Amino acid sequence: MRLLIKESSNHEGEEVNIKGRVFNIRNLGNISFLIIRDYTGVIQVVAGKDGKDVGVGDIVSVEGVVKKDERAKGGYEMKAETIEIITKSKETLPIDLEKDDINLNLNTLLDYRTISLRHPKIQSIFKLYDLLLKSYDEAMREEGFIEIKTPKILGSASEGGANFFQVDYFDRKAVLAQSPQFYKQIMVGVFDRVFEIGPVFRAEPHFTTRHVNEYISLDAEMAYIDNFYDIVKILNKIIKKMFAKMGIENVPEEIPCIKLSEMKKIIKERYNYDIPENTDIDPKGEDLAGQYAKEEYNSDFIFLTHYPIDYRPFYTMSSGQEACGFDLLYKGLEIATGGQRINEYDDLIASMKRKNIKIEGMEFYVDAFKYAIPPHGGWGMGSERIIKQMLDLDNIREAILFPRDVKRIIP
Amino acid sequence: MRLLIKESSNHEGEEVNIKGRVFNIRNLGNISFLIIRDYTGVIQVVAGKDGKDVGVGDIVSVEGVVKKDERAKGGYEMKAETIEIITKSKETLPIDLEKDDINLNLNTLLDYRTISLRHPKIQSIFKLYDLLLKSYDEAMREEGFIEIKTPKILGSASEGGANFFQVDYFDRKAVLAQSPQFYKQIMVGVFDRVFEIGPVFRAEPHFTTRHVNEYISLDAEMAYIDNFYDIVKILNKIIKKMFAKMGIENVPEEIPCIKLSEMKKIIKERYNYDIPENTDIDPKGEDLAGQYAKEEYNSDFIFLTHYPIDYRPFYTMSSGQEACGFDLLYKGLEIATGGQRINEYDDLIASMKRKNIKIEGMEFYVDAFKYAIPPHGGWGMGSERIIKQMLDLDNIREAILFPRDVKRIIP
Repeated sequence: MRLLIKESSNHEGEEVNIKGRVFNIRNLGNISFLIIRDYTGVIQVVAGKDGKDVGVGDIVSVEGVVKKDERAKGGYEMKAETIEIITKSKETLPIDLEKDDINLNLNTLLDYRTISLRHPKIQSIFKLYDLLLKSYDEAMREEGFIEIKTPKILGSASEGGANFFQVDYFDRKAVLAQSPQFYKQIMVGVFDRVFEIGPVFRAEPHFTTRHVNEYISLDAEMAYIDNFYDIVKILNKIIKKMFAKMGIENVPEEIPCIKLSEMKKIIKERYNYDIPENTDIDPKGEDLAGQYAKEEYNSDFIFLTHYPIDYRPFYTMSSGQEACGFDLLYKGLEIATGGQRINEYDDLIASMKRKNIKIEGMEFYVDAFKYAIPPHGGWGMGSERIIKQMLDLDNIREAILFPRDVKRIIP
Repeated sequence: MRLLIKESSNHEGEEVNIKGRVFNIRNLGNISFLIIRDYTGVIQVVAGKDGKDVGVGDIVSVEGVVKKDERAKGGYEMKAETIEIITKSKETLPIDLEKDDINLNLNTLLDYRTISLRHPKIQSIFKLYDLLLKSYDEAMREEGFIEIKTPKILGSASEGGANFFQVDYFDRKAVLAQSPQFYKQIMVGVFDRVFEIGPVFRAEPHFTTRHVNEYISLDAEMAYIDNFYDIVKILNKIIKKMFAKMGIENVPEEIPCIKLSEMKKIIKERYNYDIPENTDIDPKGEDLAGQYAKEEYNSDFIFLTHYPIDYRPFYTMSSGQEACGFDLLYKGLEIATGGQRINEYDDLIASMKRKNIKIEGMEFYVDAFKYAIPPHGGWGMGSERIIKQMLDLDNIREAILFPRDVKRIIP
């Protein structure tokens, strides 16, 4: 029976079997010290002649007795009685995984992604990501949301604009979903509260540290709201719950919530920075908004509301020139966008006209509103951005197993 | 505070607020009877003059007192004190949702999918699907699997063959993932046990009741196996657990497990049916295998093992001409395919040569095996097929919110 290495401390003095990968070897005459890891921990193994054939990178099975040893990496040592090489590494690893830090530039790290993921620090990013998926799922279910899966191959682009990928679909052209927007809105007419965890695809030729072209979006849509502040409230609650499940307890009961126009004034007055005219808010502006939330409210989060409607998609509910919605910033980076949606057919048609959006290909979506869909709203949230900010990673790509950008679809 | 309709029985005699959609109206002079549903249940509302403006399909909010009434649909009645029309249906519904059964042919049902999903019987399919997603997720985590999300835009096809969709990816061509195969195999070198719930895309020009071109695959991969029977065992355990979570307790501790060649003999001898020469097993053969499992073992499930290697993808471990793997049938339909994978670099290269698969574009995958990946195996399971079989649906499309086939990418 295999023992996971993290359980070693509960089995001192016992003979156990561990299985894992050899990360380092020191040879001292007839004795060798092997550093062996599985995905749960690390242990030092002392081997006799058996150890001679073992190489760095090999997968081994070791039988032996566990002993506490504070000098050993991980705090425990095993004296090997038998070592079996399960799988031999054919070549020397192209990157050094044994150091505590893996100091490679991002491109090298990603070029060797299949190997660099084995480093414990990088593993820990994706253990946290696993927990994030679980936490969102649980929090949403606790609030009565029903999980849906909607198609990723679409007849027409769901967010307008040109930033979609085209697919050859048998004898015609299709596009990859930029969001589950149409489908989750249709589904609030069925289930009141729905959520989806799934990939979205954006054909944006960005080269930034916070954009990729495929990511996992945490989506939600909820019916019977009075206004978009109901969405702000439920998202606040979900964030608080999911972060608590991830061991982070400092999400405010009420995340500060400020109008974008107000925030711009504050940024000008307090930080002497002018947000450029041709944008709603730029990355530096977001960063300063985050700084303000921290200084003024000791909050890592801030909702910015009432963006100019010109910067929001056609399905957005508006009041005058302002969108009835928000961005949620976490440590100065937008992690979610949401708000109330137009739910009256005539208003939707009018909004599409204003934005020069053709109905062609979207009839099924537009027509659904002829048959009464209740007032509703929701959000899309970038799962990997949460991880990036939580761990203060330099680049969103570090939070994705196999990131996709303009230059990279391999590995 | 809104009361969900299913909770009505706990609030007899109380004044409550319900919100939902009007499914039917009977007018008797000054009184009208409204049948109102939310996604949890149905209630009859008795309205006076207030009810005059309400139409079928409208979304309403009703205040009134709950009363038990066995003659009423759902067993409860509400005498409305106020009725507010929240959202008006602009047009008469194109399909009748009030009958207990929705007797439409599949194409009509899917053409009007945005509306037909509102029918309670169809809703119940997707409530069960929600539970399936939750149950698989929970069962996998209980067995120590870590959730991963892998890219759907790939540099090269993961299953070989020509059945992939091509994507215009900036200045080059990419393909949509037919499976997470490469990535989950790489990840067993990192986390030992991984699972993924995500879309897969198959460009197969099928017109059958059990194929679609986009579906949600329940994937898993597990390291340190002795042989593929370890995968059979864990999948058996997972199926038993997830079905129990869904209220189905009759999954055997040990699902019968028979070699395909044996099964073919039985099918010939017992049912006098010859499986055609040009296939491993055909739908009728699967159906008869399911019948045999039921008759002989009282099991809805059966594992068929050792398929001819010619019918399996290049990464499959084989012994002689037989694949070290299985299909799992549920009520005579394949719901999962799995087995042991090749984990030695040289064997992988040899298998690719035998199958005429070019390494080009897959170097990252192949090379990972130079650096030792432990013996492993796993499965891909069709989530919607499970629902189809569980509910005895005629067509897989009924188990998908918005199915994709050769002719349909809308809605």
